[in-house]
Amino acid sequence: MIGIDVKDLMRKELNKLKPYIPGKPIDEVKKEFGLDKIVKLASNENPLRVSEQVKKAVAAEMEVVNRYPDGACRTLKGLLADKLSIDEEMILFGNGSDGLLKVIAEAFLTAEDEVIISHPTFVEYVFVSHLMGSQLVRICMDDYRQNLRAIAEAVTAKTKMIFLTNPHNPAGTIFSQSELDNLLETLPEGTIVVMDEAYYEYVQDENYPDGIEYIQKGYPIIVLRTFSKAYGLAGLRLGYAVASKGVIEILRKARDPFNVNRIVQAAARAALKDTAFLEKSLQINEKGKEYLYQELNKRGIEYVPTEANFMLINLKMDSMGVFQRLLEMGLIIRPGKPLGYPEHIRLSIGLPEENKYFINCIDILRS
Amino acid sequence: MIGIDVKDLMRKELNKLKPYIPGKPIDEVKKEFGLDKIVKLASNENPLRVSEQVKKAVAAEMEVVNRYPDGACRTLKGLLADKLSIDEEMILFGNGSDGLLKVIAEAFLTAEDEVIISHPTFVEYVFVSHLMGSQLVRICMDDYRQNLRAIAEAVTAKTKMIFLTNPHNPAGTIFSQSELDNLLETLPEGTIVVMDEAYYEYVQDENYPDGIEYIQKGYPIIVLRTFSKAYGLAGLRLGYAVASKGVIEILRKARDPFNVNRIVQAAARAALKDTAFLEKSLQINEKGKEYLYQELNKRGIEYVPTEANFMLINLKMDSMGVFQRLLEMGLIIRPGKPLGYPEHIRLSIGLPEENKYFINCIDILRS
Repeated sequence: MIGIDVKDLMRKELNKLKPYIPGKPIDEVKKEFGLDKIVKLASNENPLRVSEQVKKAVAAEMEVVNRYPDGACRTLKGLLADKLSIDEEMILFGNGSDGLLKVIAEAFLTAEDEVIISHPTFVEYVFVSHLMGSQLVRICMDDYRQNLRAIAEAVTAKTKMIFLTNPHNPAGTIFSQSELDNLLETLPEGTIVVMDEAYYEYVQDENYPDGIEYIQKGYPIIVLRTFSKAYGLAGLRLGYAVASKGVIEILRKARDPFNVNRIVQAAARAALKDTAFLEKSLQINEKGKEYLYQELNKRGIEYVPTEANFMLINLKMDSMGVFQRLLEMGLIIRPGKPLGYPEHIRLSIGLPEENKYFINCIDILRS
Repeated sequence: MIGIDVKDLMRKELNKLKPYIPGKPIDEVKKEFGLDKIVKLASNENPLRVSEQVKKAVAAEMEVVNRYPDGACRTLKGLLADKLSIDEEMILFGNGSDGLLKVIAEAFLTAEDEVIISHPTFVEYVFVSHLMGSQLVRICMDDYRQNLRAIAEAVTAKTKMIFLTNPHNPAGTIFSQSELDNLLETLPEGTIVVMDEAYYEYVQDENYPDGIEYIQKGYPIIVLRTFSKAYGLAGLRLGYAVASKGVIEILRKARDPFNVNRIVQAAARAALKDTAFLEKSLQINEKGKEYLYQELNKRGIEYVPTEANFMLINLKMDSMGVFQRLLEMGLIIRPGKPLGYPEHIRLSIGLPEENKYFINCIDILRS
């Protein structure tokens, strides 16, 4: 093989894939700009850090970390099934929602299939669809909202899968029950809807459709949720899929047998039980949202009202420039440009003092 | 979709895959047999449990577990590259070697390819090859050893990949440098050799070929190693691949961006630094091996001399029956039947008192 290029051996589907370029760790940013402290409101992480109960559970579990995990996540699955009032066989855990998206693609997507996504949307939907060689059909967002009517119109006999995100990232908007009903009504047999509900816990709007209720009614839906946001465990990477037993049985075929490690399982069990931490996380998000709405309104800055723990804010300035200037002030946000909104920024809602710091920085930026 | 069977939507490649049936957790075995204590020598786990340094590092990292991990594992990669004296760009971390095997298959294997494995061998090679639709060619073991000559003869123009395990699981044997040299000499361009070196740290035989040295010489090899065995972190699921920069660049395209969580990275950094724990793990394994050799020799029980932390023992009795009877005595071993050796058992080398308990149980069994 020394004589030939290893790229010639690569699956041709990978030509469309680019390796993910990870952001800089906080410590490197500190060093680069000579800063003591960094406020990071960039990755929609939980600003309350981590539940004390979770820390205790992890410390105890570390005593037996030389042992393989329970590949079936039995205890955790039981707890979650009780909480959701569903059958355990409707749940599959994964190494983050990312890991589950890959399993879903491996289970169902082929080079003959079309996949519909919104544009812009979460890059992982593109990644897993391309990985399996499927054709992507992109439907533009309509005024910060997913256009479910246009998605329904784009469905063909080849459409194997539709990826929806509710609430949408980075817009923070939801689609309603009636919008979903209309889409499902027109859907031909053989199209699966993946509903990514990573920010489910934060939603306040009563028109929000709970994907699991639709699964219970028999609709061809796979719901994805996560412990990364409201439960504060982004560093541990735990997501779960809910679907009919038949779909979960298929997904189980494509997954790694030990894809969720022992510490993650222990942490998640404790996180599910610590309802006070979850409650507090949602409260602090609501308060932060009100504060930010108020301060942005005062200044006449446009933003998209959000159902999640982040906000898309229209500064009407080049977002890469804004990103750089805020970075120099020790504030990390997500520039909208790579997310499809070149003059917006995406701000994760933080602690009261972090939100205040953001407003101060914006005042400096605009002065 | 309510009217159609979801299996009709499944990729046809999955028809060959069966969901992994995980073993019973220790607590369930205790309950079933009314036992207080269980000795588990079944999964080649480290009997010394976990390094104190690792526990401390994990406790500290839990403070920031609300933050996403560094997707590139920069610090950990730097430490490992130094230890191995290789370039950082030759390393990719994964969620266990299992996770990396899947990435390797996704990167290179197609329905047009043949894949050569030994029989018996690790089930994950079969899983990932079937997942991508490749054709498996199985070469039988020769007297507990992988038959590299027969593997070389089985190579065709379609052979994209060969999976080798060194030391082999469950046999515990190695192939030598000269055996590998002979195979590599005859290999056509376009065949990649995956060398799974999960038990690398335990090997004593000086004829053992270090896969990384072969990569440095330019051979088309991907080496897999793990923190699950000698480093005692089976519960955390961390493996790594070493290969040429070109191969790693391709593998990076197919992996999840955040496949290794924050706690795993912190634990592995501490584990690499705690060389005393590693040393002690290897020593206790050597002592256990000597003791077991001696006691089995005394009793005239056949076994395969091992280069790993487990032994294949030929009891000349139905292994499923042996498994059940030992289970009732509170001892979990791995029956040979599902591993391809119906009258053998695979025993993980444990602490001195655990090894002694095994010998006691065997005496009862044979009396």
